[in-house]
Amino acid sequence: MQIGLIGLGKMGGNMAERLRRAGHDVVGYDRDPAKSDVGTLKELVERLEAPRAVWVMVPAGGPTQATIEQLGALLSAGDTVIDGGNSNYKDDQRHAAELGTDGIGFVDVGVSGGVWGIEYGYALMVGGEDEYVHRLMPIFEALKPEGEDGFVHAGGVGAGHFAKMVHNGIEYGMMQSFAEGWELLEASDAVTDVPGTFKSWRHGTVIRSWLLDLLVRALEEDPDLAELKGYAEDSGEGRWTVQAAVDHAVPLPAITASLYARFASRQDDSPAMKMVAALRNQFGGHAITS
Amino acid sequence: MQIGLIGLGKMGGNMAERLRRAGHDVVGYDRDPAKSDVGTLKELVERLEAPRAVWVMVPAGGPTQATIEQLGALLSAGDTVIDGGNSNYKDDQRHAAELGTDGIGFVDVGVSGGVWGIEYGYALMVGGEDEYVHRLMPIFEALKPEGEDGFVHAGGVGAGHFAKMVHNGIEYGMMQSFAEGWELLEASDAVTDVPGTFKSWRHGTVIRSWLLDLLVRALEEDPDLAELKGYAEDSGEGRWTVQAAVDHAVPLPAITASLYARFASRQDDSPAMKMVAALRNQFGGHAITS
Amino acid sequence: MQIGLIGLGKMGGNMAERLRRAGHDVVGYDRDPAKSDVGTLKELVERLEAPRAVWVMVPAGGPTQATIEQLGALLSAGDTVIDGGNSNYKDDQRHAAELGTDGIGFVDVGVSGGVWGIEYGYALMVGGEDEYVHRLMPIFEALKPEGEDGFVHAGGVGAGHFAKMVHNGIEYGMMQSFAEGWELLEASDAVTDVPGTFKSWRHGTVIRSWLLDLLVRALEEDPDLAELKGYAEDSGEGRWTVQAAVDHAVPLPAITASLYARFASRQDDSPAMKMVAALRNQFGGHAITS
Amino acid sequence: MQIGLIGLGKMGGNMAERLRRAGHDVVGYDRDPAKSDVGTLKELVERLEAPRAVWVMVPAGGPTQATIEQLGALLSAGDTVIDGGNSNYKDDQRHAAELGTDGIGFVDVGVSGGVWGIEYGYALMVGGEDEYVHRLMPIFEALKPEGEDGFVHAGGVGAGHFAKMVHNGIEYGMMQSFAEGWELLEASDAVTDVPGTFKSWRHGTVIRSWLLDLLVRALEEDPDLAELKGYAEDSGEGRWTVQAAVDHAVPLPAITASLYARFASRQDDSPAMKMVAALRNQFGGHAITS
Repeated sequence: MQIGLIGLGKMGGNMAERLRRAGHDVVGYDRDPAKSDVGTLKELVERLEAPRAVWVMVPAGGPTQATIEQLGALLSAGDTVIDGGNSNYKDDQRHAAELGTDGIGFVDVGVSGGVWGIEYGYALMVGGEDEYVHRLMPIFEALKPEGEDGFVHAGGVGAGHFAKMVHNGIEYGMMQSFAEGWELLEASDAVTDVPGTFKSWRHGTVIRSWLLDLLVRALEEDPDLAELKGYAEDSGEGRWTVQAAVDHAVPLPAITASLYARFASRQDDSPAMKMVAALRNQFGGHAITS
Repeated sequence: MQIGLIGLGKMGGNMAERLRRAGHDVVGYDRDPAKSDVGTLKELVERLEAPRAVWVMVPAGGPTQATIEQLGALLSAGDTVIDGGNSNYKDDQRHAAELGTDGIGFVDVGVSGGVWGIEYGYALMVGGEDEYVHRLMPIFEALKPEGEDGFVHAGGVGAGHFAKMVHNGIEYGMMQSFAEGWELLEASDAVTDVPGTFKSWRHGTVIRSWLLDLLVRALEEDPDLAELKGYAEDSGEGRWTVQAAVDHAVPLPAITASLYARFASRQDDSPAMKMVAALRNQFGGHAITS
Repeated sequence: MQIGLIGLGKMGGNMAERLRRAGHDVVGYDRDPAKSDVGTLKELVERLEAPRAVWVMVPAGGPTQATIEQLGALLSAGDTVIDGGNSNYKDDQRHAAELGTDGIGFVDVGVSGGVWGIEYGYALMVGGEDEYVHRLMPIFEALKPEGEDGFVHAGGVGAGHFAKMVHNGIEYGMMQSFAEGWELLEASDAVTDVPGTFKSWRHGTVIRSWLLDLLVRALEEDPDLAELKGYAEDSGEGRWTVQAAVDHAVPLPAITASLYARFASRQDDSPAMKMVAALRNQFGGHAITS
Repeated sequence: MQIGLIGLGKMGGNMAERLRRAGHDVVGYDRDPAKSDVGTLKELVERLEAPRAVWVMVPAGGPTQATIEQLGALLSAGDTVIDGGNSNYKDDQRHAAELGTDGIGFVDVGVSGGVWGIEYGYALMVGGEDEYVHRLMPIFEALKPEGEDGFVHAGGVGAGHFAKMVHNGIEYGMMQSFAEGWELLEASDAVTDVPGTFKSWRHGTVIRSWLLDLLVRALEEDPDLAELKGYAEDSGEGRWTVQAAVDHAVPLPAITASLYARFASRQDDSPAMKMVAALRNQFGGHAITS
């Protein structure tokens, strides 16, 4: 089928390519004219036959907001907008409502797969009404990995991004778990072949996983990770997961610990620990009236 | 080669079977005469040709301690004892030293694989001196999964159990991460197909893993886990992981959170929260002199 | 000076009394006519001489929002609204802006003190512009405890509720710390006089504090807290503290742990631990293809 | 009464002085001859009249162990050894048993008070048999603060150090709670007078405490704590608290978080975060076979 795709960066560009290989007609738009099939969003919309489907694959927040607003002005009743970026699920409700007043459908999709997606497929978590999701199934089929898994229509509007958000929260916790175990192995003298130990875990153990495969690869390239700085950014999803948990009174200690470890990794010096140090100074210091 | 195997329970019995299928001569001993090839440990030792190898596969702590002491009295210089149970790595040093005074070798092995091991092989993390480990390689080859992974000679005495301990600590953190994500999905109305969402994650995502495969299976059998109680035991390894981390001044927040969540799951009522409740009562209560 | 006070519940009623004892002219309004000096908000406003000051002391969220909207319609340029409830600091900005369009000032006050405040005074954390805060100083002086502490003009609009929010976050962490220590003392046989140990800490130790005084009192009434359930509500401030920390990328592990412990205390059964239990069942269970 | 006191450092020296002011006859020994009343431990013992009481106030671990062993050889049945250092409660049992074989009594005392103790008294948490504790009451009375609090006979041997250990664990959690709150206040623009906010909390709030008094003092000296490094040592008690909790299956999330924050504060770079960074590199990197 025909689809418009806005945002032809690393993710969007590869997705366009995978869709084309599957025989779909992709009209791509990007701010970079060298990548773009059309000069403007208006032109993109004009190139598509109604009912149109336009997949937005731009950074979450401002850029997505602006793009969806522009599309709302350009599209017609019966068209569908798909937000495949890393948007907050709370934004989806608003977008669906705004587009809905003009009869335009909205579907949110959490997309996982990174740079391997073009070859192996993208895991898709989809939120939206059956009517719109159904119409897009040929696109989803082309993007998802082979086999029965890698796709879910998780629920109504927002469910796709919510599911992806939780996926990323789980990912934080799994990464942190491996990282903590590695730090302990490195800190102790007991195990002398740490990379070999990680490698051994790839078969027959409870913790075998794709993340472990990646770690083995990383340790092969740099056995002590000596060339890396202990610094980790966090994407919005980790924060939103914790905030959603607090909203719902769900205790999330391991995932939150993983997020906080990233926050701390970006501090040159911990302000909180300054205060602890200040207290320890006071203990050992001068008399104070109580 | 010939090997004595003490403890023919679910793990030991299956390992004996896997070793026999590979052509090894296993002489098994168990307290249960119905499973045992010999009547006593003494008889077991007499049945083996020197230099003997005896694999101990009994519960960690007292039973392992008693068995190794008995073997120390029965075996001769040049023989080797293998502790394949879930022993604390700190015990290994002592066992190796005690046996070593009589010239008896000691090797510790962390074994992973559960009930699937008999068919797919057991991941083995091995600690000990090269001399003893080398002699046992035919046994390790038969037990481990096919392929290059699933085995590591991790270091000297204690390294095998230390590596297994850390493996289990990581496992705690990974399980907790999935569990927290699931609780959040269940608490929110956003995602209406939670089991389907877990299933979708099996392909193309960052969190694909054997644990996820098991979870999908569990959710297929009982989509809301309604038949289960939120109660989880902990094995020694989780506790030892945290205590080793504290010994080495390694922060382990996610793994520790996972252990504490299990502790809390076994309390009918949280004592700490009684005290928080008491304080909240006092706030709202009668005047108190400050 | 003259002040209107809306909400004459446990907090508001006591505050009105303390203000009157200090010679201020308080016109009180409450939904309960038995407590109210006037029949309606309109009447309240009419009874006050311009420039008016009206202190809102009603539940945070909807009731505060509705009250401030009504006041906005009734008051005139030069009047001032004070929000002394437990409002989210994010609401303060909006309220100040809305009232400001009519020339009405806005001051937010975090109030601490509970039932003891009427006698010992209320700690006040104040946010707002100097002009409005300055005018209200006689009221603040009457409400605050004697001495130089117990009052701060913490910053602009929102600063008062932000400071109170953080105060409560710290309170959560301190309460949890005592509660954890108590649980450990109770779990061990080492200390046989636990209430006496808490009592001994009241003098000469690092942890002496008003919270400790309250705990000693609670343990005197019920030495094992046997009559209490390990169940603790959380007020909004604890959640907002964590969410503000996540917004600012500040790691808050102890305070967050305290909040999560309260969440968990209200669950009959932990959903997350159901999933951990499910995984443990799967390990010990039937073969599964990997 | 007469007492021997071993270790005349900052703590021991001040305690000797407080005891002398109260009329007790203190014979002090220190490795530093300039501080010592006697040349050797032997001489100390000879100077004391039976039944002797000898208070050991030297660093925990090796020095305390060596001193108690020496005293065991020098003292006689009916004498009493007091360990007032920061020993692990597990050591107390052993010391009591060893000394007990010669009829020598043992009492363990957790001492709190720091440099203010000489003037305001030392909080004492005491473990041991009634007989020995009773005999030492004049000494305890002289050391403790005035009033009914500041002293507890917490239980049998080890109870004193266990109680002090838990006290310190609680202290870690309280310090961390204040520190986290401060970091959040500093990270946000909402509150512009942070030191003033802390000062305001000293009266009328729930979190008023001696630690807060110390913090106010620290912030008066250095309002942004700019001259301090976010680096905090931990004493043994924090680690032992966590390890005792793990031994007893008691969840201790806030106190453990406080300990881990100190561990992390001493790392130039977090090893765990290197691994998280490595994984993030792998995500964005080259294809990998799954």
